[in-house]
Amino acid sequence: MTVKKLYGSRGCLATMRVLASLFEHELDFEFIPIDLEAADHKKQPFLSLNPFRELPVLQDEDLIVFESTTIMRYIFHHYPKLGKEQVYANPKLQGIAAAWIDVEDHEFEPKATKLIREVVYKPKNGLATDKAVVAEEEAELAKVLDVYEERLKSSKYLGGDKFTAADLTHLPSLYYLMGTPLKSIFDDRPNVSAWCAAILTRPAWTMVVEMVQETKP
Amino acid sequence: MTVKKLYGSRGCLATMRVLASLFEHELDFEFIPIDLEAADHKKQPFLSLNPFRELPVLQDEDLIVFESTTIMRYIFHHYPKLGKEQVYANPKLQGIAAAWIDVEDHEFEPKATKLIREVVYKPKNGLATDKAVVAEEEAELAKVLDVYEERLKSSKYLGGDKFTAADLTHLPSLYYLMGTPLKSIFDDRPNVSAWCAAILTRPAWTMVVEMVQETKP
Repeated sequence: MTVKKLYGSRGCLATMRVLASLFEHELDFEFIPIDLEAADHKKQPFLSLNPFRELPVLQDEDLIVFESTTIMRYIFHHYPKLGKEQVYANPKLQGIAAAWIDVEDHEFEPKATKLIREVVYKPKNGLATDKAVVAEEEAELAKVLDVYEERLKSSKYLGGDKFTAADLTHLPSLYYLMGTPLKSIFDDRPNVSAWCAAILTRPAWTMVVEMVQETKP
Repeated sequence: MTVKKLYGSRGCLATMRVLASLFEHELDFEFIPIDLEAADHKKQPFLSLNPFRELPVLQDEDLIVFESTTIMRYIFHHYPKLGKEQVYANPKLQGIAAAWIDVEDHEFEPKATKLIREVVYKPKNGLATDKAVVAEEEAELAKVLDVYEERLKSSKYLGGDKFTAADLTHLPSLYYLMGTPLKSIFDDRPNVSAWCAAILTRPAWTMVVEMVQETKP
């Protein structure tokens, strides 16, 4: 069996989502770093892997697949953890879990990404944070978290009673936001806070964090 | 068996995606219109179905599921068309098809939605089109279509050799854009143009269009 190859960049949210999926499923893979600063994602040979120029790309034998949520779903469905499945066999339960993957994508991530740009990337690059954007997006994200708080009253995880991709897909954004004053919007909500603590301390996620921090100067 | 219920609004892109999925699979359902102008999606009882206030919602016996791409995936996987499957049994082939669902969501739809707002909704509501936005988004959408054109050289449909959700998910935006001068960016690309013609004339899609047009004054 050929070793899987993951082309990505360690600090990139989408790459981190796939790293976490691979570690959760204890899959061997070779990590091939793509240098975003050198714009290697806009050049060959990467363009042959993904003409949309987005990281990451997974190569699994003859399969080349892009889009991090697709790769995540593929790993969860195609490499089940026997006895510790992270997908539901019942299609209705899996339907509910899957809806929360799209909720992250459409409701949570757009706000989280704008906030991370303002409070993490801009300061890191010597740029000023736009406080109006932060205030607006923080208020919007708080509304989303109100729905999560209600959901997590009756369900240990977002997708149901077990950890699924619906939880994992949030980890990269949570990792960045938890290191900023925006941590308080999670801490203020007891069920959200307990959920964050549970998923951020998973061994697979710890391995991703170690990989990301290795690259820091 | 309880009849499925679809809560939505006929002209709404996300609702149209699910209507097409239901018709493709020849499933019986009751359509329950939600009046967006009366903001019924922000009130009870709809809020109990989807706290994120987004259309549509599908009720299938005891399952209540939101997010149109989730509902679409659920229908395609849970109600296969025996002998005329629109999903691949091979997980790698399905992985590739699934990536193009996310491509629509992340690459195609954001540009298409902005264009539809400018060239369809604004004029309909007596507002001026912002020509700078149209020029910018048209150029961005054209780049995406260049990738589609290349993909469709070697593959009849986006997801592979058969019609899948990866194609269907584009239909609502295509329907609106094809009625505007932006039709030319599709017509200019022979493979994209042939693909549009093939998917826009599917009987299931014709049924959606009839439903949408029924509501016009």
